Amino acid sequence: MSLTVFRKAHFNAAHRLFREDWDDKKNFEVFGKCSNPKYHGHNYELEVGVSGKIDPETGFLMDLKILREIIKEEVEDPFDHKNLNLEVDAFANLNPTVENIAMVIWEKLRKRIPEKFGITVKLFETPRNFVIYTGE
Amino acid sequence: MSLTVFRKAHFNAAHRLFREDWDDKKNFEVFGKCSNPKYHGHNYELEVGVSGKIDPETGFLMDLKILREIIKEEVEDPFDHKNLNLEVDAFANLNPTVENIAMVIWEKLRKRIPEKFGITVKLFETPRNFVIYTGE
Amino acid sequence: MSLTVFRKAHFNAAHRLFREDWDDKKNFEVFGKCSNPKYHGHNYELEVGVSGKIDPETGFLMDLKILREIIKEEVEDPFDHKNLNLEVDAFANLNPTVENIAMVIWEKLRKRIPEKFGITVKLFETPRNFVIYTGE
Amino acid sequence: MSLTVFRKAHFNAAHRLFREDWDDKKNFEVFGKCSNPKYHGHNYELEVGVSGKIDPETGFLMDLKILREIIKEEVEDPFDHKNLNLEVDAFANLNPTVENIAMVIWEKLRKRIPEKFGITVKLFETPRNFVIYTGE
Amino acid sequence: MSLTVFRKAHFNAAHRLFREDWDDKKNFEVFGKCSNPKYHGHNYELEVGVSGKIDPETGFLMDLKILREIIKEEVEDPFDHKNLNLEVDAFANLNPTVENIAMVIWEKLRKRIPEKFGITVKLFETPRNFVIYTGE
Amino acid sequence: MSLTVFRKAHFNAAHRLFREDWDDKKNFEVFGKCSNPKYHGHNYELEVGVSGKIDPETGFLMDLKILREIIKEEVEDPFDHKNLNLEVDAFANLNPTVENIAMVIWEKLRKRIPEKFGITVKLFETPRNFVIYTGE
Repeated sequence: MSLTVFRKAHFNAAHRLFREDWDDKKNFEVFGKCSNPKYHGHNYELEVGVSGKIDPETGFLMDLKILREIIKEEVEDPFDHKNLNLEVDAFANLNPTVENIAMVIWEKLRKRIPEKFGITVKLFETPRNFVIYTGE
Repeated sequence: MSLTVFRKAHFNAAHRLFREDWDDKKNFEVFGKCSNPKYHGHNYELEVGVSGKIDPETGFLMDLKILREIIKEEVEDPFDHKNLNLEVDAFANLNPTVENIAMVIWEKLRKRIPEKFGITVKLFETPRNFVIYTGE
Repeated sequence: MSLTVFRKAHFNAAHRLFREDWDDKKNFEVFGKCSNPKYHGHNYELEVGVSGKIDPETGFLMDLKILREIIKEEVEDPFDHKNLNLEVDAFANLNPTVENIAMVIWEKLRKRIPEKFGITVKLFETPRNFVIYTGE
Repeated sequence: MSLTVFRKAHFNAAHRLFREDWDDKKNFEVFGKCSNPKYHGHNYELEVGVSGKIDPETGFLMDLKILREIIKEEVEDPFDHKNLNLEVDAFANLNPTVENIAMVIWEKLRKRIPEKFGITVKLFETPRNFVIYTGE
Repeated sequence: MSLTVFRKAHFNAAHRLFREDWDDKKNFEVFGKCSNPKYHGHNYELEVGVSGKIDPETGFLMDLKILREIIKEEVEDPFDHKNLNLEVDAFANLNPTVENIAMVIWEKLRKRIPEKFGITVKLFETPRNFVIYTGE
Repeated sequence: MSLTVFRKAHFNAAHRLFREDWDDKKNFEVFGKCSNPKYHGHNYELEVGVSGKIDPETGFLMDLKILREIIKEEVEDPFDHKNLNLEVDAFANLNPTVENIAMVIWEKLRKRIPEKFGITVKLFETPRNFVIYTGE
């Protein structure tokens, strides 16, 4: 029987939505004010879920201190107080929509969390817009 | 790989729970104070999720401005500041429990959102009672 | 030195905003869709604060079990699942705006809570609109 | 088509994480300050989901008043304001991690809720750490 | 007797904290990662309170539709999805700390809201950091 | 003109409410299940406000990194994951009601924060019960 443990984290960042191969007019048509060339930003609130079986020795699915450290190294340290377009390699050629940010986070965590566990990423761009990605 | 994007919305409405073919005593036995013939009401908080694949051109699963407009037309405009029993056709012969309201919302959205996308409706009747419906 | 203890409570109710001496057109001009003659409703979330000195014997400002009981008798029992306009005497001739509801609640609590204590009423009509009243 | 209704509940309790067959040093290595022999505590916030089909007669999946009573009898009464290690039989020989508490709650509810319904337990140990268990 | 009505609003923006007359090293010493020259950003959540007496004719302190419109014109339209340092005149020579943003908002609202009313600005930079300013 | 900046923090702890000079029966009469001799516990959520004038050089009222460090040293380190009655000196002879805990925190912060600033302590014992103390 499988259970999922969740840990919350957060980071603040600037970004803009745009494609370099489109001109400003086309970018504004598709992305609206999110395409502002001078950037805007968000408080991203993150919930990471890890799914699997409880270790009968400890009663833990996974030590949340270790999960917290992985999230810090993979997400908070490289993303917090950054300009996602200019300072985070993953978005050098990838539009930093909340959908793409969630998938990038999931891929980064997937490399650090043992394969026997499933991973869920829930990412809030604002308190009113969010995504869930499980890699399925 | 599938991802779900969510958008929050809300509406306020009056309602009562009852069956016309039951007398007041029977309605009170089953629905308690929710059957008050003079109505009571709620702030309904709604989360609509749309599931599918990211469009590689935009990095969007679906333009949330469009989703917001669909929710406004199908849910907020017809339900907000209304008496659900008396003023919303869907509940003329259907008891407006939170379960039934969620299913009605899901059906209305299903007609407007492309078939390739899955739909999740999470509807809070109060901060303590809510339902999730995915049509599955 | 004065301290304030707060207790949360809630009730659901239907209401409409209108003046009997105005016609429907005038009511709609002033109160908009809140004047719907068939009513709408809200989940009212209430925070009651009681201010004063700590009793050195107990370390309590006031026993919160007693405060909870007073709120139940004065607010939750008479207001919950009711139509405020039709079923609550205080609003027979008083427009049930969130401002007026907060003042009515404050007056009712004032009669039950010892004079040595100050009273604060914070009342949410929706998660986005609320009032604070302290009787000052 | 299946729908899930949720009801929130809560209880406060003291606990410590430890194994009797480990010494204090080993317990501290694995469980950190959560192994404090003098206990610490939490406000556990609980969401119970019940999944199944809507009863067409009432429009309810399950009467939430009954669900609330079951949660009160099985969880709130035996757990609230208790020391989980010393006063709750289920944890006499089971480490009261949030994972194990969620599974114990699920098992207790499973015995009281009709088999035709699925059960989801979401349990917050803090606003930042929580688990979801569905028995699958 | 005075009462305060509150309305919530929000905007997203990019900013950086720095003084032009300081070099990067000094800015980093004082403002830390908030001085990132490539900007970061936040979801600013705003609560505007208006204090005064209830209009006995309407039961309103102030029509919240009008307050909402003033907030939209003075705060949301000029600040939302903007770079505060580069695109909002008020911060051309003023460091956009949450303290200064709150005071700028208060000054802008003060010019639009009748003098008989007091104004409270509560501004969240993150869910964990916020300020309150009343002009007193 | 004065402004208040707030920072949130939190700690988990076990406690019981009782007076040593009362027997168990009397303690139960006054403190109810909060007097459980085997303890219970809470997630205490804390908001610390610091009031004063903005420093025109930085635009800060007070550097929140410093405030965060003071809260860590004075509150989180000594209180988190502790048994307040047995392990925190301040409560050796003082009943750890939420009122008394808030006052103890205020006194500890008062010694560390410059006299020119006012201090507000808002302490949640549960999401439904909380206190505000300003030392006035």
